[in-house]
Amino acid sequence: MTKNGQAHGLNGAGSRKRISVLGATGTIGDSTCDLLAQNPDRFEVVALSANRNAKKLASLAVQFKASFAAIADEGAGAELRDLLAGTGIECGAGKSAVVDAGARDADVVMASIVGYAGLAPTLAALKQGRTVALANKECLVCAGVYFMNERERYGTTLLPVDSEHSAVFQSLDEQDGRHVEKIVLTASGGPFRTWTKEQIAAARVEDALKHPNWTMGQKITIDSATLMNKGLEIIEAFHLFKVRADQLDAVVHPQSIIHALVYYTDGSVIAQASVPDMRTPIALSLAWPERLKAESIKRLDLAESATLTFEKPDEVRFPALRLAKEVLKSGGNTPTVLNAANEVAVEAFLNRQISFPGISEAVERTLDKAASALAGVLPDSLEAVTHIDERARDIARSALCSARPAVTVAEAAAPRI
Amino acid sequence: MTKNGQAHGLNGAGSRKRISVLGATGTIGDSTCDLLAQNPDRFEVVALSANRNAKKLASLAVQFKASFAAIADEGAGAELRDLLAGTGIECGAGKSAVVDAGARDADVVMASIVGYAGLAPTLAALKQGRTVALANKECLVCAGVYFMNERERYGTTLLPVDSEHSAVFQSLDEQDGRHVEKIVLTASGGPFRTWTKEQIAAARVEDALKHPNWTMGQKITIDSATLMNKGLEIIEAFHLFKVRADQLDAVVHPQSIIHALVYYTDGSVIAQASVPDMRTPIALSLAWPERLKAESIKRLDLAESATLTFEKPDEVRFPALRLAKEVLKSGGNTPTVLNAANEVAVEAFLNRQISFPGISEAVERTLDKAASALAGVLPDSLEAVTHIDERARDIARSALCSARPAVTVAEAAAPRI
Repeated sequence: MTKNGQAHGLNGAGSRKRISVLGATGTIGDSTCDLLAQNPDRFEVVALSANRNAKKLASLAVQFKASFAAIADEGAGAELRDLLAGTGIECGAGKSAVVDAGARDADVVMASIVGYAGLAPTLAALKQGRTVALANKECLVCAGVYFMNERERYGTTLLPVDSEHSAVFQSLDEQDGRHVEKIVLTASGGPFRTWTKEQIAAARVEDALKHPNWTMGQKITIDSATLMNKGLEIIEAFHLFKVRADQLDAVVHPQSIIHALVYYTDGSVIAQASVPDMRTPIALSLAWPERLKAESIKRLDLAESATLTFEKPDEVRFPALRLAKEVLKSGGNTPTVLNAANEVAVEAFLNRQISFPGISEAVERTLDKAASALAGVLPDSLEAVTHIDERARDIARSALCSARPAVTVAEAAAPRI
Repeated sequence: MTKNGQAHGLNGAGSRKRISVLGATGTIGDSTCDLLAQNPDRFEVVALSANRNAKKLASLAVQFKASFAAIADEGAGAELRDLLAGTGIECGAGKSAVVDAGARDADVVMASIVGYAGLAPTLAALKQGRTVALANKECLVCAGVYFMNERERYGTTLLPVDSEHSAVFQSLDEQDGRHVEKIVLTASGGPFRTWTKEQIAAARVEDALKHPNWTMGQKITIDSATLMNKGLEIIEAFHLFKVRADQLDAVVHPQSIIHALVYYTDGSVIAQASVPDMRTPIALSLAWPERLKAESIKRLDLAESATLTFEKPDEVRFPALRLAKEVLKSGGNTPTVLNAANEVAVEAFLNRQISFPGISEAVERTLDKAASALAGVLPDSLEAVTHIDERARDIARSALCSARPAVTVAEAAAPRI
């Protein structure tokens, strides 16, 4: 994928781009809505979806005069209907309603549902040939080959929203990757970058949720702390940019100013940088191939931010990165299994059932067990992906028992730096 | 100018690109010839020129089986003829022979003659519609408006070779600058970056020639020490990239890893980086729109190079940068005058006639005097540019007398850090 993809409909000065936002009440949804609100002359809203926050969803739907609002949680459907009564805004509840929201007639669908639940609605948007602004990792991590094949089949333009992949997208030239030698994603290193292995072993949920640079949802913040997030991003980049696994790498860059670097065969490196604000990559995905004039976003001042540092990531203290690289090489259903196991393990960590290192332990154990339990099963359809995902979650749940338990308050009290 | 310029003749796999090198024996010439020698299947050499080194020029002409060799120094013509006797390589001497070399039928002319002398032969190449790889600053600094008009008239593709401008070229998207907010060139800060004003006042020629990162010719090394080089580059960027003067700036970046940054309206910054090796931008200008596979160039290893720092440039200790920014705003003949005065003053410094701060003093005095002496004379033809250049040199030579004299050995002994 390069910047040379097909242009989409900004049909002259008069007409506005029609946007749907899946996951409108989440972190990416907030930033997206902020940009949409600031540019009413450029964008209009078609459909909005949320998981269970009916109040916020209804309020956004009214604010943006959306034509459709969908809530995933069936139980919240009545509340949403009540809130939108008399507004003329159509609404729906349940997973199929969210899929419907993805399929509605928009120019760009912001696919920002967190986790595996984002797969079906994003696929629905993709199959309608909508331009998909992809903020959901799981489409590529769990179902990369299938998802990209469908994208090819329907001729859909895919714009990455993750800051790292947006950076790669912007750093690629028009030569379709022919002269690319290497793609390097940067990682902040998370809150435990400078912690010893022993200190990490005693990390509490509160510690892991303290991301140094970005404000994000809980799941992705924990993934940043384990570096699983960077591993998942490497898998995504593999599918998005059609490079070999050995052309992808990560470098720790604690300031999160440079988001990715593309190395070319002549020694040149093109990189994208910005202050850590998700509105910058979101703005690109909404406006592309144009760019928004986003005055409310702080500009990078290098002379002020002063020092940029870089380190090799430590795969001993952060085994999740190693595991992700391994499944990328193994292929087959292993990335799907990795992702499912990680979702289960992170939730268990957040519920204080397992320790922080227990997350990677549970993932590794699940991969081991799934190697035989799911041997030969390929994630080549939505059904197959769902089957692998569910089976892997079962295995992961039983693997949790043998993962290191959560630290006690007494154990956690000691280490902090 | 964006990467979207017209593609030039790499006529299929079988045929080689035909390259001429003006200034083949200089620093840029050396790097160019190194790349040409490493890629005999991709390039063949048409014409080579040198200033006065007949021996090296003849040797290169034989090595590359050039069809024409031109030496600027008439006195060296006989030596060149003798050296090339029996080789079948045509040769010529004098300024017109170098202009002839520029006009010869090549796909790409590397214009790497240092200083004002590069203008006429580069214009000759440009007027033949050759793709011009521009390493000569003076074409744009002294004759920017005229040069770019001629480029427009003849439909010539212009590829910047300076590492900073090559970086900008590579960081621009295909939107023709519409979404560019700012272009920032990096400066190493030169050998006196951390010196006080008093220490700089006592700097010797040897001190000024110690560039921290790049190996370059003497003139440009001194220009790096005064920061005049960055000022001249800002003027070049103004012409190359069609932005307003207030959209251009410089930032000191002592490691010379990032060469330039393009700021976009959505907060995104695209930057180009590499180890400091001129072969990288040269390779791009030779191969564009392809890229060479240049294995002998060291790759950037960020985890190894570790720390990148940035500072605001100090226009009090380095008044040359201020002067260059001022003439960019004034326009008219002032950039031509600035450049001429700077060439005279740097030569006087290298000859130990004036002190290091004397360089900027002489330039500023020349600008003051030329304001009346050359009032209303515009650099709108080669003749007019030549007239302004010569008159400004006369004024500069007389201004040298009132510039601070060179420091004595005793004065110089003290300061170093």
